[in-house]
Amino acid sequence: MVSPTLLASGGKRSPIRELSEYAAVQAAKIGRENVFDFSLGNPSTPPPPEVDRAILDIIQTEDPVSVHGYSSNIGMDSCRQAIAESCNRRFNRSLTKDNFMLVTGASTGLHIISVALNLSPDSEIIVIAPYFPGYRAAIQCGGNKMVVVPPDTEHFQIEFEALERAINANTQAVIINSPNNPSGTIYNEATIKRLAELLERKSREFGHAVYIICDEPYRELVYTEETVPYIPAYYRNTIVCYSYSKSLSLAGERVGYIMTDNDIDDFKDVWTALKGGAGIVANVCMPTLFQKVIERCVDVKPNIADYAYNRDLLLKEFKDIGYRFAEPRGAFYLFFQAPFGMTGMEFSELAKKYNVLVVPADGFGCPGWLRLSYCVSRSTVERALPLLRAIYQEAGAAAR
Amino acid sequence: MVSPTLLASGGKRSPIRELSEYAAVQAAKIGRENVFDFSLGNPSTPPPPEVDRAILDIIQTEDPVSVHGYSSNIGMDSCRQAIAESCNRRFNRSLTKDNFMLVTGASTGLHIISVALNLSPDSEIIVIAPYFPGYRAAIQCGGNKMVVVPPDTEHFQIEFEALERAINANTQAVIINSPNNPSGTIYNEATIKRLAELLERKSREFGHAVYIICDEPYRELVYTEETVPYIPAYYRNTIVCYSYSKSLSLAGERVGYIMTDNDIDDFKDVWTALKGGAGIVANVCMPTLFQKVIERCVDVKPNIADYAYNRDLLLKEFKDIGYRFAEPRGAFYLFFQAPFGMTGMEFSELAKKYNVLVVPADGFGCPGWLRLSYCVSRSTVERALPLLRAIYQEAGAAAR
Repeated sequence: MVSPTLLASGGKRSPIRELSEYAAVQAAKIGRENVFDFSLGNPSTPPPPEVDRAILDIIQTEDPVSVHGYSSNIGMDSCRQAIAESCNRRFNRSLTKDNFMLVTGASTGLHIISVALNLSPDSEIIVIAPYFPGYRAAIQCGGNKMVVVPPDTEHFQIEFEALERAINANTQAVIINSPNNPSGTIYNEATIKRLAELLERKSREFGHAVYIICDEPYRELVYTEETVPYIPAYYRNTIVCYSYSKSLSLAGERVGYIMTDNDIDDFKDVWTALKGGAGIVANVCMPTLFQKVIERCVDVKPNIADYAYNRDLLLKEFKDIGYRFAEPRGAFYLFFQAPFGMTGMEFSELAKKYNVLVVPADGFGCPGWLRLSYCVSRSTVERALPLLRAIYQEAGAAAR
Repeated sequence: MVSPTLLASGGKRSPIRELSEYAAVQAAKIGRENVFDFSLGNPSTPPPPEVDRAILDIIQTEDPVSVHGYSSNIGMDSCRQAIAESCNRRFNRSLTKDNFMLVTGASTGLHIISVALNLSPDSEIIVIAPYFPGYRAAIQCGGNKMVVVPPDTEHFQIEFEALERAINANTQAVIINSPNNPSGTIYNEATIKRLAELLERKSREFGHAVYIICDEPYRELVYTEETVPYIPAYYRNTIVCYSYSKSLSLAGERVGYIMTDNDIDDFKDVWTALKGGAGIVANVCMPTLFQKVIERCVDVKPNIADYAYNRDLLLKEFKDIGYRFAEPRGAFYLFFQAPFGMTGMEFSELAKKYNVLVVPADGFGCPGWLRLSYCVSRSTVERALPLLRAIYQEAGAAAR
């Protein structure tokens, strides 16, 4: 006999997973080049050359016992210090290694934070739609309740009135993800300032910090001139959860960190709880080899040329076809509305007929919308453009 | 405000962690070579040369996008199949990739299994003292209660009468760890057969499987001629949790797997629950680069020459001095009793005066005993021998 809860949830398939398995089946039938799989957020650009160069150099010159052995549970001092100094240069802060814990990816980081922030079964963590579906597991893993703020489908900023209504005495945190998966939008400075003011007011009202959990794996993937606001500069009680998965194309290597600044309320307690939470979710640490790689690559810039090319092409074509979509400013997702009043699932099924795979956003808290991941080759996007037009036209014809 | 449970437990320090931090402080004062740190189970032998050779070849010849990108959540087919075929060759089985899930180390594996086996807050998982202290976090992470069977300090096999009394309708599993951390002993075939018979009888009595969770990171580290029984060949309802941490000296790289054979009860449900459990504890997967490394190194033998040398030296000297200890047959631990009626903590404190660091085994469920990790350099052991004799003599003099 095994967990009845998991048996029940194990039966429910993730639509992303289903689409990517369908892609594999179709690829076997009609050839991989004829399947336009926009379902997964797996980087299509190789890591910057500095990454593999660092791996080769470490393997060829360093002591293999220390390269592959256990590090301290929170990560090697030298790697954490290098990350701190990089953040200081970029964001004008005064961080040290003691503000950082290395983790096996941002997912693990979010689980740890959720465990650390759980006070009771009544504790709540707020997500703002559209949101990454993995937040549900992280929030529940900590024993917290997930509260969803509906999306602002006009500008994909934050519906502040709905957010304010969602906050109560049990609210422990609000998760912010900007650049956003799935919308590709970026919360602007006005949004962040208003968010900080609201949470400061609510923290005073309820007598305890309402934290921002700042999940920022897409921080470096930005296609416009704008600056992504550095949240801890606007709100003290921020816990940052970062990952090198997307910026350095290391999604499979499990490399991320948790960071808080010194001026977070109860700094020492927060870190005691985070370290305890890491034990609960069995985060031993970021793989040691990659700690050494990251230490050498903290200032390496991502290569976003392919993503930028794909984004520009899709943006132009989607405007031209007539799709309604969120302005894609960062990450590598184009978020668009199913046309002609279709549901997301209906549109996704129609697109499958053309071997175009896009994810209905119901699981992202935004029914009627879809996510197209453009972290694919340029030619995949180029060859999919006429299909995306044809799908729109077939949908329109059916609606008439 | 953060989790009060974690704040409370975060205050309690792990004696292993305390000793290793003490070691660092002492090393700074008197030189690293003058501190005899036997506290940690971190391999001191480099990985076999095939490991770094595989890394270099993969980095130099394979597509970096697939080397560093996401794999499937349960791991790449090719790596899982290679592991299956290696097990088939070694243990005469008919396993395939579908019997395996790759995980970020055995700790994560145990957490996943614990989550998968939780039926209710009453569910229990049994550990047999002396046991690895990390089991407590894994068992509690799943929402289960940990039940301890007292040690057999004569032979370090299993006290079957105590085990039988510990099993009830809520018992979901018994964790077996052989070769054992901390005792270094191996459960012999008679023990495994008797265990299988008992659990089969109890499974019938309670109408559901009582699983064996077989935690075997030390399977390959054996210093005698004996064969470590392959548990699934004796008991169908076994869930194996393996790690390459010790055998390939990759403790920091987070590489392990969960395995069940096809004839486990409710195979499909067990795997649905395990996959669900992996989501709960945010195990995304074994780092992708290392999946490729393991695929190439499944049959690589560990290099145990240094450990064997250290073990033989310690065994001979401990006999000669007069310490009482468990016969060290596997792993890399010497488990000995504090002499002259001392507590483990008293002995550990006395040893610290000689800059010899050994871990009191209270946290392993075996008060009055201590663990000495001999995964250190040969010279560390050689130079520690007179100190271990002097400590014994001082303890004896104090007792008279």
